[in-house]
Amino acid sequence: MKKDWELLNRESLVKTPVFNLRRDRKLRTASNLTWDFYILESGDWVNVIPTTPAGDVILVEITRHGINERSLEIPGGLIDPEDPSPTAAAARELLEETGFEAEIVLPLGVLHPNPAIQGNRCYTFLAQNARKVADPTHDPAEDIAIVTAPLGSIPDLIRAGRITHALVISAFLWLELGEPGALGLARPERS
Amino acid sequence: MKKDWELLNRESLVKTPVFNLRRDRKLRTASNLTWDFYILESGDWVNVIPTTPAGDVILVEITRHGINERSLEIPGGLIDPEDPSPTAAAARELLEETGFEAEIVLPLGVLHPNPAIQGNRCYTFLAQNARKVADPTHDPAEDIAIVTAPLGSIPDLIRAGRITHALVISAFLWLELGEPGALGLARPERS
Repeated sequence: MKKDWELLNRESLVKTPVFNLRRDRKLRTASNLTWDFYILESGDWVNVIPTTPAGDVILVEITRHGINERSLEIPGGLIDPEDPSPTAAAARELLEETGFEAEIVLPLGVLHPNPAIQGNRCYTFLAQNARKVADPTHDPAEDIAIVTAPLGSIPDLIRAGRITHALVISAFLWLELGEPGALGLARPERS
Repeated sequence: MKKDWELLNRESLVKTPVFNLRRDRKLRTASNLTWDFYILESGDWVNVIPTTPAGDVILVEITRHGINERSLEIPGGLIDPEDPSPTAAAARELLEETGFEAEIVLPLGVLHPNPAIQGNRCYTFLAQNARKVADPTHDPAEDIAIVTAPLGSIPDLIRAGRITHALVISAFLWLELGEPGALGLARPERS
């Protein structure tokens, strides 16, 4: 479909260490409407579902300051300029946050965290046969605890409101799309 | 788990019509570390999967200015102060964006769009037996096209990168959790 918005002006409003906020003033040519859009600029992110040979998922629990609560998530973070690829970034984040290393890191999918207000993408991976090889090396402001859960318990952790992060929930749908049945959901028609 | 962060200072940095940006300066008491967190303040959101009596999903295609592209999504938006409940907000957004009204609107789940940098929640609903009852009434900056797709085609729309919005992908996992088999995913063990 034809784009009918013309950028009139772009202004940086605030720069922070984690993202920048800018304002795009655009003209909707069809209706001659001028509108301001507020956009967060950030690099691309990675998320990774690490599974052990026994079929457990390695989760991380971390204080999230947007909600001011602990949040149960999968490992992930910002792709660094030094990362040779999103896959390498996922393996690095996994190792840093948990001390685990996987035999194989497979791409599950790519999504937009919030296409209305952010331009960046999140690359989601599955890391299979993950084994503990080191101690975690956290950033000073990260207070991460490692939680191991059977893959089949993930649906109940989501239903119970223990896992609430949209990017993490999305990662598990990607897993189910790639490997139907992975989450062990019971289906009425199977009886 | 005990919270070990103490809020030292909160400062509003920018107010925009869609969200406000603030800085929380916090002290991590265990390590005597002071750290700045940047938080977007926004009201809570709703998202709704509208399905027709024939089993189709009513999707909306809209220009998203974060990615500067068209995005295929489910209807949704900000809960207004006038909305008596999140369920009512979902029904209102459905009617405004598509002109469809549902017989029943069921809660699927609640999630955090991004608990690291946002405090708000997104309430996700399933709207069943949706029927066209009116013309859409869009905001002036919304350029929405309505796209109807069979529910069973959603996995392929996600795999093909046509649906990329994390909140929309999460909504479909919620649907699958509530109604296993809803997305029609083929499972090897069924053969």
